[in-house]
Amino acid sequence: MVVNVTKTRVRYADTDSMGVVHHAKYLEYFEIGRTEYMRERGIPYAQVERDGTFLVLSEAQVSYRGSAAYDQVLSIKTQVESLSGVRVKFKYEVLDAKEQVLAEGYTVLASVDRTGKVKRMPESIVSALKGSK
Amino acid sequence: MVVNVTKTRVRYADTDSMGVVHHAKYLEYFEIGRTEYMRERGIPYAQVERDGTFLVLSEAQVSYRGSAAYDQVLSIKTQVESLSGVRVKFKYEVLDAKEQVLAEGYTVLASVDRTGKVKRMPESIVSALKGSK
Amino acid sequence: MVVNVTKTRVRYADTDSMGVVHHAKYLEYFEIGRTEYMRERGIPYAQVERDGTFLVLSEAQVSYRGSAAYDQVLSIKTQVESLSGVRVKFKYEVLDAKEQVLAEGYTVLASVDRTGKVKRMPESIVSALKGSK
Amino acid sequence: MVVNVTKTRVRYADTDSMGVVHHAKYLEYFEIGRTEYMRERGIPYAQVERDGTFLVLSEAQVSYRGSAAYDQVLSIKTQVESLSGVRVKFKYEVLDAKEQVLAEGYTVLASVDRTGKVKRMPESIVSALKGSK
Repeated sequence: MVVNVTKTRVRYADTDSMGVVHHAKYLEYFEIGRTEYMRERGIPYAQVERDGTFLVLSEAQVSYRGSAAYDQVLSIKTQVESLSGVRVKFKYEVLDAKEQVLAEGYTVLASVDRTGKVKRMPESIVSALKGSK
Repeated sequence: MVVNVTKTRVRYADTDSMGVVHHAKYLEYFEIGRTEYMRERGIPYAQVERDGTFLVLSEAQVSYRGSAAYDQVLSIKTQVESLSGVRVKFKYEVLDAKEQVLAEGYTVLASVDRTGKVKRMPESIVSALKGSK
Repeated sequence: MVVNVTKTRVRYADTDSMGVVHHAKYLEYFEIGRTEYMRERGIPYAQVERDGTFLVLSEAQVSYRGSAAYDQVLSIKTQVESLSGVRVKFKYEVLDAKEQVLAEGYTVLASVDRTGKVKRMPESIVSALKGSK
Repeated sequence: MVVNVTKTRVRYADTDSMGVVHHAKYLEYFEIGRTEYMRERGIPYAQVERDGTFLVLSEAQVSYRGSAAYDQVLSIKTQVESLSGVRVKFKYEVLDAKEQVLAEGYTVLASVDRTGKVKRMPESIVSALKGSK
């Protein structure tokens, strides 16, 4: 089971009037995790797009377990939960420095071409996502 | 069944490199819908907070069905799906001008006090949310 | 002197830990004002882009005079301060419901083509921006 | 002359329909730079706030010289340009991997207390900002 762990620091702009990270920002943190997962697997997403494959969100879910404030360093754990030729489901955990889970969730992404039409991912991407780089 | 419909226009800053609204922004659109739902029910959320009740996200889910570009006017339909004294589940649809659903989903909010401790919502809020204003 | 006045409501996500609108959001509010100014002049910016002219920021400046909280309705006043064939300077004021100026500033935009190369704006855009629609 | 250099990676959510970082995000990058400058000087801003001093923006200015895309690693150079007991002016440069300046600018921050009233910064903060830690 391949797991990528990456860290990010909460920007002041990520917080809201409640004094904690705004809930929508966790989707940005998931995106940071997904970016680093793909880079680590040898398929940086920027390159994947340049090669003509776009991964667009078809579903996202977040369960909020805690909260984070400005300047905290968060860990984002990312892994692939399931995978087909046209779809990949990532799952994520966002943890604070004490390893408390602040949020967990998943996103399902569909593979499309430049015009938005569903297309199979290249085999190289499928196998890299699987962890059999 | 009480449904609030409100409109919002896509800001340039809401879009991303794919040329469409970034997926995390739909949680902000849901939040706009929730804000207007509560105002229409006579319980503006800003007032609810001033009175000492905070509704914090415990879960969010979005299914993406289409995409929106800069400057489009979107309709956000918001309703309460379920409700207890300490928890409320809103559901949402975001539609374009042709009434195509671009995204739908829900959020579950927990009622807490200023310190973050779970507290029952005042009865006036519960009944307003129910639609029996 | 053509002035466009448009209103926007502060999203919860626009605020930060200080309990007020995050300072970077004022550039988004300026952008909302600029969008509505251009629409009112008959040259909606989305259309301008489709026709091949892109207005990119070359400078932005904001002076902060006050603060706004979640759910406040703000007025954005936008006008063109100066204009050449390749450059336009907009100035803005953001006011609260009591007509207090919360922020004022300007942005300078350069006209470029799809590839980012400087190009003269079409005459129709120049005259519309001037207010001689 | 004390200069802090810190790096940040462009989030997908930071980009807009033009395929590059949205101009308002540079104020967030400046904020990241300011945060790291203060941490390096031994006065982490989160701590400064906990001690009762809030630095609020009174002015911001950005000159845009280039553009950045998703996933680029940017360097943010931050230094203090001028300083009084109640006000500090930071200046910034944001550079790409080839040391090209993409944006430069400044922010002026005023020192206020919890209630928003102007107050002198503690001497320890003034001297740390000066670089005479």
